[in-house]
Amino acid sequence: MITLTTDFGTDSPYVAEIKAAIVSVARDARIIDITHAIPPQDIFQAAIVLADVSPRFPPGTIHVAVVDPGVGTDRRLLAASIGGQFYIAADNGVLTGILQDRAADLIMELNRPAYWLDTVSRTFHGRDIMSPVAARLDDGESIANMGVPIDDPLRIDWPLPETNHNEICGEIVRIDNFGNLITNIRGNLLADITADRAVVACGSHQSQGVHSTYGEHSAGTLVAVVGSAGRLELAVVNDSAAERLQVGVGQAVVVSW
Amino acid sequence: MITLTTDFGTDSPYVAEIKAAIVSVARDARIIDITHAIPPQDIFQAAIVLADVSPRFPPGTIHVAVVDPGVGTDRRLLAASIGGQFYIAADNGVLTGILQDRAADLIMELNRPAYWLDTVSRTFHGRDIMSPVAARLDDGESIANMGVPIDDPLRIDWPLPETNHNEICGEIVRIDNFGNLITNIRGNLLADITADRAVVACGSHQSQGVHSTYGEHSAGTLVAVVGSAGRLELAVVNDSAAERLQVGVGQAVVVSW
Amino acid sequence: MITLTTDFGTDSPYVAEIKAAIVSVARDARIIDITHAIPPQDIFQAAIVLADVSPRFPPGTIHVAVVDPGVGTDRRLLAASIGGQFYIAADNGVLTGILQDRAADLIMELNRPAYWLDTVSRTFHGRDIMSPVAARLDDGESIANMGVPIDDPLRIDWPLPETNHNEICGEIVRIDNFGNLITNIRGNLLADITADRAVVACGSHQSQGVHSTYGEHSAGTLVAVVGSAGRLELAVVNDSAAERLQVGVGQAVVVSW
Repeated sequence: MITLTTDFGTDSPYVAEIKAAIVSVARDARIIDITHAIPPQDIFQAAIVLADVSPRFPPGTIHVAVVDPGVGTDRRLLAASIGGQFYIAADNGVLTGILQDRAADLIMELNRPAYWLDTVSRTFHGRDIMSPVAARLDDGESIANMGVPIDDPLRIDWPLPETNHNEICGEIVRIDNFGNLITNIRGNLLADITADRAVVACGSHQSQGVHSTYGEHSAGTLVAVVGSAGRLELAVVNDSAAERLQVGVGQAVVVSW
Repeated sequence: MITLTTDFGTDSPYVAEIKAAIVSVARDARIIDITHAIPPQDIFQAAIVLADVSPRFPPGTIHVAVVDPGVGTDRRLLAASIGGQFYIAADNGVLTGILQDRAADLIMELNRPAYWLDTVSRTFHGRDIMSPVAARLDDGESIANMGVPIDDPLRIDWPLPETNHNEICGEIVRIDNFGNLITNIRGNLLADITADRAVVACGSHQSQGVHSTYGEHSAGTLVAVVGSAGRLELAVVNDSAAERLQVGVGQAVVVSW
Repeated sequence: MITLTTDFGTDSPYVAEIKAAIVSVARDARIIDITHAIPPQDIFQAAIVLADVSPRFPPGTIHVAVVDPGVGTDRRLLAASIGGQFYIAADNGVLTGILQDRAADLIMELNRPAYWLDTVSRTFHGRDIMSPVAARLDDGESIANMGVPIDDPLRIDWPLPETNHNEICGEIVRIDNFGNLITNIRGNLLADITADRAVVACGSHQSQGVHSTYGEHSAGTLVAVVGSAGRLELAVVNDSAAERLQVGVGQAVVVSW
């Protein structure tokens, strides 16, 4: 099973070129789209989505992440085994979120053109290198044969929440289609506090308590919830918190009690 | 075979979380997206799309509809057998359109956590309950084992056309990507009238006749057609009727003769 | 294997109706979306995308193109074998790009309702005729049985670059999600010129040299690259050339040296 995460845009036929490259090698490979709507060149968003979504797939799933502004330059291409899943990506930090939570079993720099398309462009390594490598892995080839091991994958700055004695300072890391503001504050950080007494502040807005779901509150209420990714999020019931609060990724969120 | 209809947005990785949950139970389950572009929390739009599209799938297809603003509250979750197809949805009216046209064979309230994910969040029952239940059904499990039968599924108000002696009053229920205005007036209601003499009015605009296709008219013409869903629709040839008429869902459409 | 290229919009449930029609005939048919974001009724864009993407699929793939403003009129529907791939489309020019590069082996006008859905609407032949025909082909039926051979498929005007002694005049034929401006000037036309000395002009903007990739230049630089489709394209590193240059499809691009 192969998943795809790219910044090509949901409308883009480049996605189909990736799939054509995969099925040309592994005709029956199952392919599932994670998203193609990573903002162009936004390595951080790709890293967050991969970290939140990829571990939910069955062990052995091959996750291809094509957010690759350095395509054609001398940046490395990687195939990695991390936490029972496989990842294929440019060495630009897109695996930082996954590596934050899990130790890598093996990371290879791809250097074996025998596993690539016969003709490799300089501008679309997702199609010409990463996809056929994914197809070979899906066919049972070992990542150990794909290149040479490395131990220094590039990591991007990763915003971690800071816990003080009576507050946790984090930030918004993702905004979903409902306008929910998803933070880097994991629910387990909140385990010891009294949910009712917590105040969650974002910009000039604040919300009393950390709740377990949206629907218990009346429409239009700003609520703080530990959401389905295990992250604290701010939501407006049946409306968009992003629009109401007029905030974006990177905005500070503070939980105090 | 499993279909998905959600309000997550086409770009959203939540769709992939649904698919991950399904393939974690039923690795080879075939999954087809109906749409993920239901407007957030718009139960009526989901109900219309399900009613128009789901019956076109082969008998036994499992349709998962995740438009669930009440997630985590005490609203029920349902698995139903209706018209030879299966449906899994929150009990919030999303099945109203299907139930309008067909009698339910069996509707179960889901109450068997053994069929769900081990960890069930409070905010994403589409992933944690509905998807694994769909996967079990796809694997051959009977819906009769999934919970307890009910006979009072929630229904939302359903706009029906009114027929008087020389007119039918309906309304727009859906607008497609071409800007075509799709109504709740079924073609069979028009069977006895002389198509040429009918006048179809919407707001201050009107169109003479009910035609069989768009392309017979010159570009820019407003035409009334019984479209591919068997519903009367207003279209502007090679252009958007929604933009031209500046109308939306709920707008009255009157056929007179 | 069946691919789909339509102007339905990525959000549209019409795509699912196509898939339902296919799997109702050929339950296990593999279906891959090329794109559903062809602008409504834009036959030229569909033709460009088909020409660039479809040949990348394995031989024998069946490409269904539903951009069909003339649906329900007397325009013909075609099934064609071209360059080892199959195509099913309305006879409105959508195959022009494919036929530009390759000779057709066989083009049939579809005229055998036994291969169609039992009920054929006047407004959705993509679902009611093209999809079941594709499913039959996928099931092993020969296109020779689908209708009668023709040799005069409709072709639309196809912009070709003009080469003079020290310049090539082409135009933008497609703009991708990154804002890259993709032209009708193929890389092989540039094989004999000195890449460093070429100047690529578009509107009032120009770029020195034809390069092999984006990432070698600093962010914000306008670069000309022979891209992954083998076409000359103008790109702004880590930004959108379409927005920067404020140009669209049809805009002239001139390479001089």
